[in-house]
Amino acid sequence: MTYRAPINDILLSLNHGAGLAAAVAAGHYGDFDGDITAAVLEEAGKFASDVLAPLNKVGDEHGIKLDNGKVTTAPGWPDAYQRWTAAGWNAVSGPEAFGGQGLPLAINAACTEIWSASNVAFGLCPLLTLSAIEALDAHGSAELKQTYLEKLVTGEWTGTMQLTEPNAGSDVGALRTRAERAGDGTYRIKGTKIFITYGEHDMTDNIVHFVLARLPDAPAGTKGISLFLVPKFMVNADGSLGERNDIHASGVEHKLGMHASPTCTMTMGDKGGAIGFLIGEENAGMRCMFTMMNQARLGVGLEGVGIADRAYQQALAYAQERRQGKAIGHKGDGMDPIIVHPDVKRMLMQMRSMTAAARTICYATAVALDVSVRAKDAKVRADAAARGALLTPIAKAFSTDIGNEVAYLGVQVHGGMGFIEETGAAQHYRDARITSIYEGTNGIQSIDLVTRKLGANGGASVWALLDELAATIKQVETSNDPAFGTTGAKLRDAHAALERTSKWLLERLASAPKEALAGATPYLRLFGATLGGCMLAGEALAAKANGEAEPQRYVALARFFAENISVQGPSLEKTVTESAEAVTGADAVLAG
Amino acid sequence: MTYRAPINDILLSLNHGAGLAAAVAAGHYGDFDGDITAAVLEEAGKFASDVLAPLNKVGDEHGIKLDNGKVTTAPGWPDAYQRWTAAGWNAVSGPEAFGGQGLPLAINAACTEIWSASNVAFGLCPLLTLSAIEALDAHGSAELKQTYLEKLVTGEWTGTMQLTEPNAGSDVGALRTRAERAGDGTYRIKGTKIFITYGEHDMTDNIVHFVLARLPDAPAGTKGISLFLVPKFMVNADGSLGERNDIHASGVEHKLGMHASPTCTMTMGDKGGAIGFLIGEENAGMRCMFTMMNQARLGVGLEGVGIADRAYQQALAYAQERRQGKAIGHKGDGMDPIIVHPDVKRMLMQMRSMTAAARTICYATAVALDVSVRAKDAKVRADAAARGALLTPIAKAFSTDIGNEVAYLGVQVHGGMGFIEETGAAQHYRDARITSIYEGTNGIQSIDLVTRKLGANGGASVWALLDELAATIKQVETSNDPAFGTTGAKLRDAHAALERTSKWLLERLASAPKEALAGATPYLRLFGATLGGCMLAGEALAAKANGEAEPQRYVALARFFAENISVQGPSLEKTVTESAEAVTGADAVLAG
Repeated sequence: MTYRAPINDILLSLNHGAGLAAAVAAGHYGDFDGDITAAVLEEAGKFASDVLAPLNKVGDEHGIKLDNGKVTTAPGWPDAYQRWTAAGWNAVSGPEAFGGQGLPLAINAACTEIWSASNVAFGLCPLLTLSAIEALDAHGSAELKQTYLEKLVTGEWTGTMQLTEPNAGSDVGALRTRAERAGDGTYRIKGTKIFITYGEHDMTDNIVHFVLARLPDAPAGTKGISLFLVPKFMVNADGSLGERNDIHASGVEHKLGMHASPTCTMTMGDKGGAIGFLIGEENAGMRCMFTMMNQARLGVGLEGVGIADRAYQQALAYAQERRQGKAIGHKGDGMDPIIVHPDVKRMLMQMRSMTAAARTICYATAVALDVSVRAKDAKVRADAAARGALLTPIAKAFSTDIGNEVAYLGVQVHGGMGFIEETGAAQHYRDARITSIYEGTNGIQSIDLVTRKLGANGGASVWALLDELAATIKQVETSNDPAFGTTGAKLRDAHAALERTSKWLLERLASAPKEALAGATPYLRLFGATLGGCMLAGEALAAKANGEAEPQRYVALARFFAENISVQGPSLEKTVTESAEAVTGADAVLAG
Repeated sequence: MTYRAPINDILLSLNHGAGLAAAVAAGHYGDFDGDITAAVLEEAGKFASDVLAPLNKVGDEHGIKLDNGKVTTAPGWPDAYQRWTAAGWNAVSGPEAFGGQGLPLAINAACTEIWSASNVAFGLCPLLTLSAIEALDAHGSAELKQTYLEKLVTGEWTGTMQLTEPNAGSDVGALRTRAERAGDGTYRIKGTKIFITYGEHDMTDNIVHFVLARLPDAPAGTKGISLFLVPKFMVNADGSLGERNDIHASGVEHKLGMHASPTCTMTMGDKGGAIGFLIGEENAGMRCMFTMMNQARLGVGLEGVGIADRAYQQALAYAQERRQGKAIGHKGDGMDPIIVHPDVKRMLMQMRSMTAAARTICYATAVALDVSVRAKDAKVRADAAARGALLTPIAKAFSTDIGNEVAYLGVQVHGGMGFIEETGAAQHYRDARITSIYEGTNGIQSIDLVTRKLGANGGASVWALLDELAATIKQVETSNDPAFGTTGAKLRDAHAALERTSKWLLERLASAPKEALAGATPYLRLFGATLGGCMLAGEALAAKANGEAEPQRYVALARFFAENISVQGPSLEKTVTESAEAVTGADAVLAG
């Protein structure tokens, strides 16, 4: 079946759950006209359904081919990419000075969900280009921007992020690729990178690689890393393509999923070294890379949301169609669609509510990042930056965990048919699996949350957020809507658990950091379960207040999430605060 | 890397967690000599490591080929199967009168874990043969037994279970395959079955199919189903093979995992009908099939355990070898193995403790099934039968959920390498996915637990088990071993939650069955989390009491499970008892 973008759910989430409407009303988005949001998303949904979704299975089945350094993508893919750039989708949030539409990241976040839902392996290519654009725009010289930025913004060329090497994965500082000064301001790069997404392909004439490398006199570790722009083809002064640069795809990976997206081993230096241009300062590459990574992390969170929504839509359609057994109380012959069975309803509600919660967390992250650069007031910008920094690891890890969990349930709803590749449920399950690993594993996101985001300012960002969530909980309780069930109580318990656990972790960060790190993963889950529950409740309240059609649907969804996911908060608190010793003292068990 | 059967852990689990030693001491196993257990398992482990484990990846990569009705398995597989039967592994628990060794099911359960860990797609073939043996032994005529049973017990021929049809999956009663009386006591079967595991292969000369079909005058639904034995080749009076029967593999599935195990579409009746022999009475096929299914359900639970252990072993080895980053407090150059990082330790402890809990639940099920047929005392047999019936759905569903979760973590520990098929972590993840679906989806297991097992006798089986678990919890608390951390408190809370939830469900079963069914899945999880936690704690106490080497390892493992998994009990209780309405009232949400 195809995919239909859930525009109503997305708009409610974006405007009310994630706070876009309030931020626009407060003037933080300047002259952005919020009324165009719906129109943009409708068009995005149409493009996704018509062009991208039909290629999802084709890409999975055909995969890609590497032959003599050339990568061929699946049938129809280069053409779809042409239509993508021609329609302007690559340029949604790109800088207007370089051909972009300058729309908010929040709008692009919703689009990213839509691209990922329709065809995640396709959407991954522009996602990385977007990160490259960010880094170049923020740190590149005027000359480099002049030559490369517009091509990347329009999507005429694509970008790559080249960090990983065989011995430098999560530990980027261990990378060994070398850059030598050529004497003319350029550099010669030699080394091998692995796991390079769209490192080579046949969808564009040129590819702009962003490569981390180490200068001969660089200090050890992450302080000795520089970022270089390395074009596949050199660019002549008139903008035409020149010589082939010394960077080549020497291998592609055979992967569990994302078959249509080439994951390349890139070799530089077979012919003396690839010509590279420094971005930012020498040895300051990590800072530039973090600019790329924050965007990419949010993007990957949105992949989780997108895959989850696609898996949900497919499972729902199957459950409405497939007939097995009879509903309780069904008299007479015939079988009922399996959606009548409470256990199937439970799975579908879990899929839908988890997807909705992850969606709003991601969108809220995008709104914070928007406000952090768009608001006039410096304090507003700073607060928003702190909020965006806090939410990014949650958006990435919680949403991709959910992507995997929802895709798992999608297979389960299909029963035996889910295990057969033909139905497509298994593809979502396979594709989702990388999202909790790349752009920083979810374990690393959790550590980032505890050490850098919670720990950064004595927890100030967390307390500020908790105050907002408390206000939402109060509104739920005072709404006296019986349809909320025990939502208010569940959210209050989760909120209290999150607050206590945050304090406990802050103390341990100073006194016993191993114990703090031992609880990082359940802490992030507790955070997501609380935050997501409050956000869905807030959306339900907004739906009621704003005269949304059938607002009780959103109340029921928020209730399900609170009573099934947020309810785990107090247990997660206990795991963090009482079981650290069981983790740090695990050596004897694991040795045996 | 290869697989090594964790013999010490298995023996502790089997003898003390699952209660084999006590049952033997009480005389329930007759003259079975418990001392041979270790020797049998050592040999099984050796066969698994030497013969089966090396073929696991080969099977995944080659898969199987169907050509003109003939299935070719992967290179080395037919030879391995010959070695398997020659070594007597097929006959471990088979009846002695027909060439079996008559060993307890509990021993065979441990062996099944070992086969599944080393090569789950291989082990699946004898698992189904074992079910066929059970059905034939229990319900077959003397003549059919004479002809077929020894061949199945020794493994010279394999067996299949043929229930599923395109419109009859979970709802077996909807099947349409027809059986007509031929007038000579035999039947002619016509119809199509799907998803038939090892329905055709090249490892044996003959295959004995066990087929559910409907007589022309049969009542509708499950009361009109009969079970037939349908040989691939007819068997002459002298035992030699005769004519080819009219049953053929007409297709094979392209699956997410278990690539080496042929999943066939079987067509009967192209040439007038396959010759079938009735097993048991006409229209009493479901009862015979349940004999097969209970065994098979436990076997699938053990597949979950086996895959989990294999994934754990592989992840542990990777974490000990792969170096990234530095441990907290590490000074100087170089990177540490990733096992030093608390988040990685957490994942490995979660994998190991969940695997251990699932293992003991499965073994305890096998012990109960053994005692239910072996004990002299009728009351002991009846109680054991009730216990076995209660534990079977938990053994199946909880263990296979865990198999999937552990395989997920196994990929995660590998980071990016986990997504690359070459490392093998992804194969475990793919293979595990079917275990929570086949032999009754885990949702169906949960419904079985609530309606048939809890509901059967007013909860008597559950209360009896809860009493035993309470005794273990008391022992943990009175042990005053600080290494248990908060294990006692966590288990007590989970136990109380399970007791209250069981009572709530019993009431609702009568008054509001939809609400009871809405909570079936979280109830089964609550049950497994409580039961598994108590069993691991019991094992730890036994390890201490029996002078096991390093008993504190088992204490730490039990503690981790209690504080990370059992701790979820009270939340799961709330989900079952307070959120049923959010499930049963989901229609408006799912329609939108």
